[in-house]
Amino acid sequence: MGYSILDEKSIIDYVINSKQLKGFFTSGDAEAKEIGDGNLNLVFVVKSKTNSNKSIIIKQAIPYLRCVGESFPLAKERMKYEIRSMIEYEKLSPTSIPKIYHTDEDMCLIAMQNLNNHIIMRKGILENIEYPLFAEHISEHLVKTLLGTSSFLMSSNDKKALMDKFTMNTELCKLTEDFVFSSPYMTDATNRHNPEIDEDVKKIRLDNAFKIKACELKYIFMNKSEALIHGDLHTGSIMLNNNETFVIDSEFAFFGPIGFDVGAIFGNLLMAYCSYFVRDNKTYQEWLLKTAFDVLKLFEAKFILQWAQVEDSALLPKPYFEEMGEARRELQELMIRQIISEAIGFAGCKMMRRQMGVAHILEIETIEDEKQRAIVEKAVIKLAREFVLNYKKLDNINNIFDTVKNTLSYLH
Amino acid sequence: MGYSILDEKSIIDYVINSKQLKGFFTSGDAEAKEIGDGNLNLVFVVKSKTNSNKSIIIKQAIPYLRCVGESFPLAKERMKYEIRSMIEYEKLSPTSIPKIYHTDEDMCLIAMQNLNNHIIMRKGILENIEYPLFAEHISEHLVKTLLGTSSFLMSSNDKKALMDKFTMNTELCKLTEDFVFSSPYMTDATNRHNPEIDEDVKKIRLDNAFKIKACELKYIFMNKSEALIHGDLHTGSIMLNNNETFVIDSEFAFFGPIGFDVGAIFGNLLMAYCSYFVRDNKTYQEWLLKTAFDVLKLFEAKFILQWAQVEDSALLPKPYFEEMGEARRELQELMIRQIISEAIGFAGCKMMRRQMGVAHILEIETIEDEKQRAIVEKAVIKLAREFVLNYKKLDNINNIFDTVKNTLSYLH
Repeated sequence: MGYSILDEKSIIDYVINSKQLKGFFTSGDAEAKEIGDGNLNLVFVVKSKTNSNKSIIIKQAIPYLRCVGESFPLAKERMKYEIRSMIEYEKLSPTSIPKIYHTDEDMCLIAMQNLNNHIIMRKGILENIEYPLFAEHISEHLVKTLLGTSSFLMSSNDKKALMDKFTMNTELCKLTEDFVFSSPYMTDATNRHNPEIDEDVKKIRLDNAFKIKACELKYIFMNKSEALIHGDLHTGSIMLNNNETFVIDSEFAFFGPIGFDVGAIFGNLLMAYCSYFVRDNKTYQEWLLKTAFDVLKLFEAKFILQWAQVEDSALLPKPYFEEMGEARRELQELMIRQIISEAIGFAGCKMMRRQMGVAHILEIETIEDEKQRAIVEKAVIKLAREFVLNYKKLDNINNIFDTVKNTLSYLH
Repeated sequence: MGYSILDEKSIIDYVINSKQLKGFFTSGDAEAKEIGDGNLNLVFVVKSKTNSNKSIIIKQAIPYLRCVGESFPLAKERMKYEIRSMIEYEKLSPTSIPKIYHTDEDMCLIAMQNLNNHIIMRKGILENIEYPLFAEHISEHLVKTLLGTSSFLMSSNDKKALMDKFTMNTELCKLTEDFVFSSPYMTDATNRHNPEIDEDVKKIRLDNAFKIKACELKYIFMNKSEALIHGDLHTGSIMLNNNETFVIDSEFAFFGPIGFDVGAIFGNLLMAYCSYFVRDNKTYQEWLLKTAFDVLKLFEAKFILQWAQVEDSALLPKPYFEEMGEARRELQELMIRQIISEAIGFAGCKMMRRQMGVAHILEIETIEDEKQRAIVEKAVIKLAREFVLNYKKLDNINNIFDTVKNTLSYLH
């Protein structure tokens, strides 16, 4: 089957003729609306004209960056990796992704549950909504998907067979390599920043100690094929409500360092936290900080707990595991420390690039007054620099918490 | 084209009918002899009946371990990875591999230059032959193939496309995972050792500090997709004479840590060095030690030199590279330190497993007196343990040299 770009009309034919989807709607009863927010993909909601509860989402990748047009090509094959990772997530952690009804690699599309009772977390944060189960849910998702696709759990053959499905996701990996780890810290036409922080930005671009560490972290990102990572797990890739938390938009998925996903969540929550230094809601700010650390704490605790139950793995064959006795804990401790410290380094790069690279975040960009916004941006830069410079030592919750508190104490 | 196992008769037909090989011999003038040493593959020398200078080697993989028989299956597809890595080596470092005349992935065979003026290095060592150019040649090969397939030099797209050709070399990677990093240090039926070192072996198997580090190194081997490594670069995979040095038998090739190849050479030379504590040739012993360290020194120097000439790479885009100025050296220093330290860790594991795992080495196994052999084996175990326990600190030639001298001083 070939590829063609769908529209609100042709998608109805597609749905009605699809073996997997035809049960959803009867011919003539389906209608479609394109609701994509305009950045990357087409997103259709297809629903029944007679029963408003019957609806699905169909996401289709197109071969260019939608918000720019055909002049900015971006291979539609990225959907292949989103599909493959969603299928893996469905096996490992089914409650943390929307239900998948149908996938089609040729048409670069995925049909899934319409999350119309959920919102993008970034938007929820702007509305000061607390999500009491978020840390619990996302840490569970992280452990199940990351531990579950690592050598701590999988056999070497199975891991490599899975890895083989993602090796060629080069285009999106390269976006991360460039836009998280390099371009923001050098002269590059895509960079932009608030003129109020011009001096701070210049200082970082001349800060070789920072740049060496960013490079070290980039090297880890490029070379550590540790587990199937989401690759872009910021608060804009999470849809949730009080009861449920879903991970979406996994087109960046590949075998990379476990800390990258953990750091993405942590760093994005900390940026939101910083934005509240100039917004009027201290209670919510505290919730953000607590949640960021709860994610880290729960991730660590669950990772150790679930790993300890694996008695035979690629890394530790059964007799090796058994004959080590209690020393296993020491090994686990070492391994989790390394994951946490890398997560902090990655969090730092992700925080830094959002202040001075091409892509910024809503929580900070919506602060209209440039001077007010600069207060937040400077705080994020300060903290991000600490994280990147010292990530190797920042391997446990306590000293990470102290670093956040001490670095930002001037704002309290 | 299908696969069939060749013999001394059918190989003549194959050669005469092969497009790439038919120029070599005229019909009726070719004769073949199987000369494989019996472990893994069939190795034929095909030569002209009338001109003894005209000969080629054809190596064919068979779907089981030859020395055991069909009861020990080993996928013939391993030849695919040998072929692919040889083709890559031919591009990157053509003088360090035999000339390749023809490859055939379906038939699992490779036709190449007959190295009849060269011997396997392990055998040369047993004959006390000094190779004055060896360190120069092998360090050049290591830098060209390892730097040349890493993110220090390749574009991310090219690197991943190359990586994609090796990801599924799972079977042979797993042999290394098991037999270098796990089985020797646990209860396993394949292990064997000299009864004279029974206590030493037991001690290592109870030594949790050692076992934790071995596990850490195994994790690096399994997860660091740093460059296309040979994967089994001991002195038995090198054929040489005074003027030329060739690398062969690269069926273990995959994207792994750079230090693994470097450590393999270094560790094997050190084991040979240790064997001379009970052999009567102090001059040759000193040559072995000097050569081991020359390899390390030259590798380090050339790696830095050749890397410094790359002004635009996946890791360091041009503006990043330029704007870092002299700080680039600090970054390089950091990176090479890490490679060296991992090489020492890997060398340690490789040295240890040869004393107590399934596979031993000729230089030590040919010492017939068990008590004499034990002197060597104990020395290797002592040194290997130091390497594995302290590899993170052993990141420069001087402290590595001191460790060797101090650990073995009791033997002088």
